[in-house]
Amino acid sequence: MNIDLTTTASLLRSHDNILIITHASPDCDTLGSGFGLYYSLKKLKKRCKVVCSDPFPEKYRYFIFEENFDEFDPEFVICVDAADAKLLGEYQELYDGKIDLCIDHHVSNKLFVKKTYLDAKSSSTCEIIYKIISELGVELDPLIASSLYSGIVTDTGCFKYSNVTRDTHLVASELLRYDFDSYLINYNLFECKTKERIKIECEAINSIEYYHDERCAIMTIPMDMVESLKVDPEDIDGLAAIPRAIKGVLVGITIKRKAQDQYKISVRTMMPVDASAICSEFGGGGHKVAAGCLIKDSFENVKARLVCVAKKHLGC
Amino acid sequence: MNIDLTTTASLLRSHDNILIITHASPDCDTLGSGFGLYYSLKKLKKRCKVVCSDPFPEKYRYFIFEENFDEFDPEFVICVDAADAKLLGEYQELYDGKIDLCIDHHVSNKLFVKKTYLDAKSSSTCEIIYKIISELGVELDPLIASSLYSGIVTDTGCFKYSNVTRDTHLVASELLRYDFDSYLINYNLFECKTKERIKIECEAINSIEYYHDERCAIMTIPMDMVESLKVDPEDIDGLAAIPRAIKGVLVGITIKRKAQDQYKISVRTMMPVDASAICSEFGGGGHKVAAGCLIKDSFENVKARLVCVAKKHLGC
Repeated sequence: MNIDLTTTASLLRSHDNILIITHASPDCDTLGSGFGLYYSLKKLKKRCKVVCSDPFPEKYRYFIFEENFDEFDPEFVICVDAADAKLLGEYQELYDGKIDLCIDHHVSNKLFVKKTYLDAKSSSTCEIIYKIISELGVELDPLIASSLYSGIVTDTGCFKYSNVTRDTHLVASELLRYDFDSYLINYNLFECKTKERIKIECEAINSIEYYHDERCAIMTIPMDMVESLKVDPEDIDGLAAIPRAIKGVLVGITIKRKAQDQYKISVRTMMPVDASAICSEFGGGGHKVAAGCLIKDSFENVKARLVCVAKKHLGC
Repeated sequence: MNIDLTTTASLLRSHDNILIITHASPDCDTLGSGFGLYYSLKKLKKRCKVVCSDPFPEKYRYFIFEENFDEFDPEFVICVDAADAKLLGEYQELYDGKIDLCIDHHVSNKLFVKKTYLDAKSSSTCEIIYKIISELGVELDPLIASSLYSGIVTDTGCFKYSNVTRDTHLVASELLRYDFDSYLINYNLFECKTKERIKIECEAINSIEYYHDERCAIMTIPMDMVESLKVDPEDIDGLAAIPRAIKGVLVGITIKRKAQDQYKISVRTMMPVDASAICSEFGGGGHKVAAGCLIKDSFENVKARLVCVAKKHLGC
């Protein structure tokens, strides 16, 4: 059942011992939402805890403080930024049928829990959480503001993408009332790269091959280099955006070796080419313009098969 | 003389035949300011024109329409986003002592004209122009909004930098009331790169040399490659941000050959290192964290002198 902002706030106000589940492979929006809400509920003197099927990534630790988590039997269970039960990892089975509320912004949300507050017009779940916290009448603080700001900037590419609305900027403006270093957050999330990371980036770019009148670009991550430079895999997140950012490219494909004859493929497209349709031909999926799959074959075959499928989807 | 917002709006209201001068080597902020103001003054039925010592760059043509420029003897001359007369190029001499008003956000503004409306707290001159237009009571339209939005995003790295304030987001939110494609603007300004541009970027990155415990990084733009690939110099704007974005680097320097034994230097720093102080040692200037200068010497000497000055400013 879809519920509105006021009902969501009422539900939160009337419960205690609240468990917040973020989605697995947590990104900054699910974590910012979970922790922004957690710190706010703590201010309302509720017992509360945030959990995730995977470890909290180091790079978001500046707003993650779990030392004081309460221990309790959950009375009210929330999941944030999860469009589908299967995204909850181990918590899918653990809380099957027991999740009371989902707060999300994905239009693809499967309404898989009892009550869902879905606002698909919001840039991010963090933008929604800001509105819920305001409705609850909780005064924000720098920690809450920086948690929510972080999720908004990562989901919008720092206010670059088409999901940004007037409201997104209004919320950002409100968050900047609080004393946190938004520049440092942005610098760490978007600008700062290690020496090793930019070397790998160059090597990857040099590997780019163009097909189909340069409308398809295929890039290979130099995994030997990643390993020899001992680069954290987190550190090469985002490389998949490179091929599609080349002028004229409609299908940008990134190939990353996972194991012998096993490759993780990221596909980014420009509309109207459907990344998710391309990946579904290999058993994968995702969004219209960003999707992924796994292909088990030799490197040369993987590339040839991708070139062939890209051709079909480019209609050439 | 420093004047305030109300006086600035009064001055504009009480004059006609207005010439707007942008700074030479025009960036998006000076152009967005010039054209945003131009379109607004046209709505007030004034005769008006925008001029620049250099050609208007192709990439900003989406908000530049000069076909209908009026011809007149200027009665009121304005310069926008120019901190110093010498930044006006040929218009410095042409309008020496004849500029009535400067609208700017650079703290280093030399107050070189009769009246200056300086708001150094603004992220960009476009942010100031928005406030002036509002004060004038002119209703914006998509063209004015996209002009101003473009200047704001380029001067703030799309809301990433430390010059972003609550007001910057509020203005952005107001601009998004109007129907223009902010995503497309951001894609073209920040994401999309030509094949040639990313090749040059890789070559430049490979040239990076580290000094002073890797706190200083010096990158050289491969001008031979820029020329042989026939890349528009506009297309390599923004490369100067790369060296400072490397983790641990406090002084990022970019060297670009302009002519035989003549190099354009861009310096980007992390606080507290002062980029403007470094550049002023070579007769240049700019902001605290982004500045530039021109050095006439051999390439090896230019590099050696920069390494030496960087050392002093790093305090090592």
